[in-house]
Amino acid sequence: MEGKTVACSKVVMSAVMQPNQANPAGNVHGGEIMKMMDNAAFVCAQRHALTNVVTARVDELTFHLPIYVGNLVTCHAHLTFVGRSSMEVAVTVFVEDLYSNDPCQKALSGYFTMIALNAGKKPIRVPPLEITAEEEQNAYERGKERYNNYQAVKKQKQ
Amino acid sequence: MEGKTVACSKVVMSAVMQPNQANPAGNVHGGEIMKMMDNAAFVCAQRHALTNVVTARVDELTFHLPIYVGNLVTCHAHLTFVGRSSMEVAVTVFVEDLYSNDPCQKALSGYFTMIALNAGKKPIRVPPLEITAEEEQNAYERGKERYNNYQAVKKQKQ
Amino acid sequence: MEGKTVACSKVVMSAVMQPNQANPAGNVHGGEIMKMMDNAAFVCAQRHALTNVVTARVDELTFHLPIYVGNLVTCHAHLTFVGRSSMEVAVTVFVEDLYSNDPCQKALSGYFTMIALNAGKKPIRVPPLEITAEEEQNAYERGKERYNNYQAVKKQKQ
Amino acid sequence: MEGKTVACSKVVMSAVMQPNQANPAGNVHGGEIMKMMDNAAFVCAQRHALTNVVTARVDELTFHLPIYVGNLVTCHAHLTFVGRSSMEVAVTVFVEDLYSNDPCQKALSGYFTMIALNAGKKPIRVPPLEITAEEEQNAYERGKERYNNYQAVKKQKQ
Amino acid sequence: MEGKTVACSKVVMSAVMQPNQANPAGNVHGGEIMKMMDNAAFVCAQRHALTNVVTARVDELTFHLPIYVGNLVTCHAHLTFVGRSSMEVAVTVFVEDLYSNDPCQKALSGYFTMIALNAGKKPIRVPPLEITAEEEQNAYERGKERYNNYQAVKKQKQ
Amino acid sequence: MEGKTVACSKVVMSAVMQPNQANPAGNVHGGEIMKMMDNAAFVCAQRHALTNVVTARVDELTFHLPIYVGNLVTCHAHLTFVGRSSMEVAVTVFVEDLYSNDPCQKALSGYFTMIALNAGKKPIRVPPLEITAEEEQNAYERGKERYNNYQAVKKQKQ
Repeated sequence: MEGKTVACSKVVMSAVMQPNQANPAGNVHGGEIMKMMDNAAFVCAQRHALTNVVTARVDELTFHLPIYVGNLVTCHAHLTFVGRSSMEVAVTVFVEDLYSNDPCQKALSGYFTMIALNAGKKPIRVPPLEITAEEEQNAYERGKERYNNYQAVKKQKQ
Repeated sequence: MEGKTVACSKVVMSAVMQPNQANPAGNVHGGEIMKMMDNAAFVCAQRHALTNVVTARVDELTFHLPIYVGNLVTCHAHLTFVGRSSMEVAVTVFVEDLYSNDPCQKALSGYFTMIALNAGKKPIRVPPLEITAEEEQNAYERGKERYNNYQAVKKQKQ
Repeated sequence: MEGKTVACSKVVMSAVMQPNQANPAGNVHGGEIMKMMDNAAFVCAQRHALTNVVTARVDELTFHLPIYVGNLVTCHAHLTFVGRSSMEVAVTVFVEDLYSNDPCQKALSGYFTMIALNAGKKPIRVPPLEITAEEEQNAYERGKERYNNYQAVKKQKQ
Repeated sequence: MEGKTVACSKVVMSAVMQPNQANPAGNVHGGEIMKMMDNAAFVCAQRHALTNVVTARVDELTFHLPIYVGNLVTCHAHLTFVGRSSMEVAVTVFVEDLYSNDPCQKALSGYFTMIALNAGKKPIRVPPLEITAEEEQNAYERGKERYNNYQAVKKQKQ
Repeated sequence: MEGKTVACSKVVMSAVMQPNQANPAGNVHGGEIMKMMDNAAFVCAQRHALTNVVTARVDELTFHLPIYVGNLVTCHAHLTFVGRSSMEVAVTVFVEDLYSNDPCQKALSGYFTMIALNAGKKPIRVPPLEITAEEEQNAYERGKERYNNYQAVKKQKQ
Repeated sequence: MEGKTVACSKVVMSAVMQPNQANPAGNVHGGEIMKMMDNAAFVCAQRHALTNVVTARVDELTFHLPIYVGNLVTCHAHLTFVGRSSMEVAVTVFVEDLYSNDPCQKALSGYFTMIALNAGKKPIRVPPLEITAEEEQNAYERGKERYNNYQAVKKQKQ
């Protein structure tokens, strides 16, 4: 199976936050942002695998800044590590206040692990990740380390 | 008031179409796409004006291709013509089938006329549009023509 | 194929605007109203054609008045022109403040062009429009003119 | 306080049922229809009282026919009985299959009791109901009887 | 067919009320609460019948207290009476202000009559209700009385 | 400040999954479940702190089983560790097929770190967690360890 580059599947998705996405405190509901990040991870993994994918894990999801109704929210997602049927997607969310000239700021970040499934809902092999830059190589190593940790914990629990 | 370029406010917004955006026939509801286009026009005009903006008109909104649940939809929006407080935004929607390698295709296009308002909800002067390419100049001329036609029809009705 | 009158398919749809339909500025989202207008056009065309219909174009969609959460919004839709498989629907939106005795006011208007499709998603012939009043005849002439203009522009682009 | 007629506040509201209103079985969710009926009762009572109103009771809400995605649903609401600050609204829901020429059919009916509130959220006197037809008089008598029954049960529980 | 106890199917469902569930006055929309009660009745009846169920009637739905965005709402539902294919579910809604130590309070109550259907959408026999306490017996008697009243009114109208 | 027990704030929330919560593949959208888990963590932390709380982190969010439209989903949330203004909530999601007698199964689990804020949106001290069982003590130790790891990583990045 031929490899595919990180660039080949990376995706940028954005939306203006609407009042129906607010939480009772009036900010944008954290769950709405998680849903948007999950969608970005889904697109990224599906573009790589060209088959159906499901979310298996979310780790180190960190909220750096609150997001308000009316803000423009932009999700950047790209693959960091690819195993046999497992793909780790790094998702970063930026927020921009449309009433000002201020540059957008990092609001959330996290790692989504996606699994490619065949029509019978069984894990299926995906193309390997073709690394083209040192930065990608570093991200790959750290992603692989996280992947191995999850597998170790899984075995421990069995 | 200093001018601002087309590039300064252009925006790309995208989302994966979900089942709750379907119409009774099972395709994505045209109204959902119009809402997304309206949001893109809103971001584009607000970035230019840095004040609140409202939609005044939609023209030549054309549906070229149906959009299905699961498709990735991408709205491109940029200013074509700017009057005193009126801004015309060209919005083009592309659709991509995430299960294939096919390139994305143009699905809808249209012109949204937005008006900048001050805090008292009255029209307010916005920065002029700084033209930097022949293509932009052509779009500006056609946009100005549409604007003048709307004004003529408006007067006729009074 | 026997003709059907304008009265036979005209429709009135209404709803109270809810907070989950607001835009970030707190007014009702223009996209929500467009969706409601599209639904009214859909009902009108489907009643005439008795087959599935899709939106092909929206033109001259004009926002005359803002709409607020809590307002009663009423869409009136009726056919103006019917071609072979194409139907133009005029949609007018009225808004009423339920806390006052004030009469409802025209808030938006526009033309929606709908296409009747057969089960194979190909355009299908619809009943002709039976004209029964001079006002209907005038609307028909103007609708036919718009239709011919769209066709001319389409050919030009090819 | 001058009386107001039944005709003065009666309302007809309608909508095409969308896939996001379905229940897990695929029909339209009963709760969605109840919400629409509640909105119709709200408009009817608010038009009569011209002040804020809240739902106090729902009785004899009966589901006669299932409603499907794509159906046109129409709610008719009119006042039957008006007490000091309490208004009973009869709401009837009709359903129409847009793919056929079949006439619409009664799908649900029920009585909504609404209370008018002043700015301090206390019950406030509303205009009496001016009866103009024998049918209205009969409905008024039955509404008054239901109202008296509720009051009797309330006292019994105290 | 073996009987099943009240305890076997009773259910508690809860949710924090979000801004997209508000009505134009800013409280939680009564229709949203009705939808939640309908869901609780559905779960309760489906657990008893283990087949598809639909709502047939709602009676004596009473709003005791308003509910605000941010409140925790809890629906308790249990069977009171079971006929051949008809099940009456008593649903009580409690509301809790999460910013205080105050105990939750009863906000709504009502009776939902659900019908079990077979795959052909015809009423189907359900397990009888096994009574295990005097309180349950009393509720059963009152439920049976309501059921007989509905049947009598139904016959009268035919 | 007096301590509060784990039992004092633990919460169980549940809902029937509706078609408008599906993802394009027809299962329940992972983002919808994350939103529900976030709500449960929010209620749990707010009951402990009796002040406004926001989500700061999500870790080890694991999807064990897919969830389908029509399933009953139940979130259990309880505090594991409480720092000065930081509270870790363990959230476990169970899924139940209402058409069968099968017991509910664990579908997701994860840790949500919530921060208590004062009116000025600054972190505020919350009551300590009063431990009443060995199991709670073990969970507390592991929670404290995760907390210290996050803090160490944070410092490293500065």
